[in-house]
Amino acid sequence: MQANPYTTYPAAYLKEFTAQVFMHFSVGEEDAWQAADVLSKADIKGIDTHGIARLKSYADMFSIGRINPKPNVRIVREKKSIATVDGDSGLGLVVGPKANNIAMDKAAQYGSGWVSVCNTNHYGIASYYSLQALERDMIGWSMTNSSKIVVPLWGIERRLGTNPISIAFPGYKNPPIVIDLATSVVAFGKIEQAKRKGEPVPKGWIMDEQGNATTNPDDVFEGGLLPLGSTRELGGHKGYALSAMVDILTAVLSGANWGPFAPPFALFEEAPKESVGKGIGHFFGAMEIDGFEDVDVFKKRIDHWIEVFRKTKPAPGHDAVLIPGDPEREAEQIRTKQGVPLIQAVVDDLIGISKLTGVKF
Amino acid sequence: MQANPYTTYPAAYLKEFTAQVFMHFSVGEEDAWQAADVLSKADIKGIDTHGIARLKSYADMFSIGRINPKPNVRIVREKKSIATVDGDSGLGLVVGPKANNIAMDKAAQYGSGWVSVCNTNHYGIASYYSLQALERDMIGWSMTNSSKIVVPLWGIERRLGTNPISIAFPGYKNPPIVIDLATSVVAFGKIEQAKRKGEPVPKGWIMDEQGNATTNPDDVFEGGLLPLGSTRELGGHKGYALSAMVDILTAVLSGANWGPFAPPFALFEEAPKESVGKGIGHFFGAMEIDGFEDVDVFKKRIDHWIEVFRKTKPAPGHDAVLIPGDPEREAEQIRTKQGVPLIQAVVDDLIGISKLTGVKF
Repeated sequence: MQANPYTTYPAAYLKEFTAQVFMHFSVGEEDAWQAADVLSKADIKGIDTHGIARLKSYADMFSIGRINPKPNVRIVREKKSIATVDGDSGLGLVVGPKANNIAMDKAAQYGSGWVSVCNTNHYGIASYYSLQALERDMIGWSMTNSSKIVVPLWGIERRLGTNPISIAFPGYKNPPIVIDLATSVVAFGKIEQAKRKGEPVPKGWIMDEQGNATTNPDDVFEGGLLPLGSTRELGGHKGYALSAMVDILTAVLSGANWGPFAPPFALFEEAPKESVGKGIGHFFGAMEIDGFEDVDVFKKRIDHWIEVFRKTKPAPGHDAVLIPGDPEREAEQIRTKQGVPLIQAVVDDLIGISKLTGVKF
Repeated sequence: MQANPYTTYPAAYLKEFTAQVFMHFSVGEEDAWQAADVLSKADIKGIDTHGIARLKSYADMFSIGRINPKPNVRIVREKKSIATVDGDSGLGLVVGPKANNIAMDKAAQYGSGWVSVCNTNHYGIASYYSLQALERDMIGWSMTNSSKIVVPLWGIERRLGTNPISIAFPGYKNPPIVIDLATSVVAFGKIEQAKRKGEPVPKGWIMDEQGNATTNPDDVFEGGLLPLGSTRELGGHKGYALSAMVDILTAVLSGANWGPFAPPFALFEEAPKESVGKGIGHFFGAMEIDGFEDVDVFKKRIDHWIEVFRKTKPAPGHDAVLIPGDPEREAEQIRTKQGVPLIQAVVDDLIGISKLTGVKF
C-alpha cells in the first residue's frame, strides 16, 4: 500500500504561518494578513497552484530585494470613474486588494470604477478580487497578465501569459456565479502536474519548438502552451485575442511590461532581457448593481438563471450542468472541515522557509 | 466551367437600397441610414452573415409588426457612469448606436460609461460599436446575447446564443486592434455554410441530440453548437462561462430575455414559449484613454505591441502571426475597390424585398 503523499493542515494554521513569514520580511501587520488571506483562499478553494505553494517564490523575491515590503500604492492619473495605479513594486497580494478597493470606492461614487495597475507582481487568484465586489453589492471584474508561456496563433514563440479573466455575479438565495478562467487552453499548473507524474498531456494543450502538436509536457518550455481553442479550426485565434485583451488592459494601458516582456515570478525562470514598463499589470473593475436595477431584483434573476441552467438535461456520463464557481465551492466545503492537503515538495519548501526566517512551522 | 455563383455590387448601392427599405417600413431617414451603415460595414469587412443577407429577416419582422420603426430609446435607470436603457422594441441597428452613444457620452463626463440594454433585437456586428469609441479616443466594448443554439458544458440542450464579445484599441500609425469573437467554437454562419455546400463540419463543433460528437451540420438543430473550447479537456467550460458572462451583462442585468428565453431573430426559428423579460440584450462600454494615460503614449505602445507580435516566428505552413482585426481589414481593402459579392440566394431575397416594398433593386 502506498503511503498518503499528502499532509493535511488546518487552513488557519497555514494562514498564520504565511502572515508571520511576510512580517519577517518587513511587511506591515495589516498587509501581511491581507496577503495571507489571498493565498489562504486559494488553498481553501482547491486552487493549489496559487496558494501557500507559492510562498517560496514570494520569500525568494523578498530575499533578493525584488519586492518592496512597504509600498506606497498610489493613483498616478485618474478621471472620475477610471485610474492608473502604481503598485510601487509591492507584493501583488497587497497591491491587488488596495487597487481593487480604489475601483470599488470609485464605483460607490460614480456607479462604476476601473483601475489599471502597473509596477506589481503575482496577485494570487483572480476571483479573490471579483468576489470582494459582491460584499458591496457590485459586480466585480479582475484580470492580470503574467510571464510568457502562451504562443499566439500561428506563432511558435511564447509571447503571452496565461492571462486570466474573472467576473462574479451575486445570487439571492443561491451562491454567486464566479467566472475565473485562464485564457490559455489550460492553466500552467496542469502541465506541471503531468510533468511531476511523468504522464503525457492531451493533444491540443502544447506545441514543441518546431510548432508541432506534442503530448510531452517538457516540450512546453521550448515550444509553448496553446491559447484557449487550441487550433485555428477550434477557435485558437479567439483564445489568443482574449489573452491580448487582458495583456493590453492590464499592462499596455497602465505602463507595465506587456507580452513577452512581463517579468517571471519564480527565480528559476529566465527574465526577459528587455523591459518596456514597470513590473506586471492588473485590471480591476466594479459596477454598482443598484445603478442598473434593484439589487434584490437582479439577485433573484441570477437565482432564476442558475436554476434554469442546473436543470439542463445532462450529456451522457454526466450528472448535471455545472454553474461557474461550483468546483471551488465544493472544495471549500471539504477543506474548511478537513484542512488543506499539501504535497511533500510544498511541505519541504515551508520547512525551508521556517529555517530561513525563524518562523515556527 | 461553373458559372460564378456570386454577383458583385458596389457597397454604396447596397447601402442605399437598405436605407430605402427601412424608410419604406416607416423608419426615420437618419435612423434608416444609421441602420444601413451597420449592415454595410459588415458586408465591406467580409462578415457576410451579418450584412445585407439579414435584410430579409428585418423586413419580415417589420411586416408582422414585431419591430417598432420609431422607438423612444431611453434611459430607465442610471447612476453617473452606468445606465439601463430600454430600446422600445426598435431595430437593434438603431437601438445599438443610440445606446452606445449614451455609453460614450457618459465616458466623456465620468471617464467611463457602461450601458446594459433591454427590449432590442439583432444589432449587427459587435465590432461596429467598439470601433465607434475609437473615434473619440476611447476604448470600446460591445456584447450582445442572441437566441439559443449553444449547449452549456455538459448539457445536451441549447441554452445560450453565440454571444459575441468585442473590444477595440486604437493604434498610432498602425490600424486598431479589433477583437470580435463569438463565444461559441465557431460562428453559426460556419455551420450554415457547410450545410449549404453539403459538407461535414470538423469534429468539436457540434453535438447531436444524444450528446455525441457529430460532423453532420443538420444535427445542430436537435443537438447544439459547442462553446469555445469544445470539450472539458480543451476548456469547453471556459467558453460556456464566457457566454454566461455575456448573457448576464446584456440580458439579466437589463431585464431582457436571457439564456433559452432569448427570442429568435428569424421567423423560421421557433420562439420560446416563455418570456422572462423584454426582447434581447446588449452591453456597451467606453473608457477614455486620457483618464489612464496620454492618448498618444498609449497609441504608440499599441503600435509597439502590434510590431512585436507581428515579428513572432511563424508556425510551419503560416506566413505570420495575425493581429486581431487583420482579416476584416484585408476584406475591406478588396471590397472597397471591387464591391460586395452576394450569393444568388441573397440576391433573390433582395429582389423579393424590392417587389414587396417597391424599392428599386
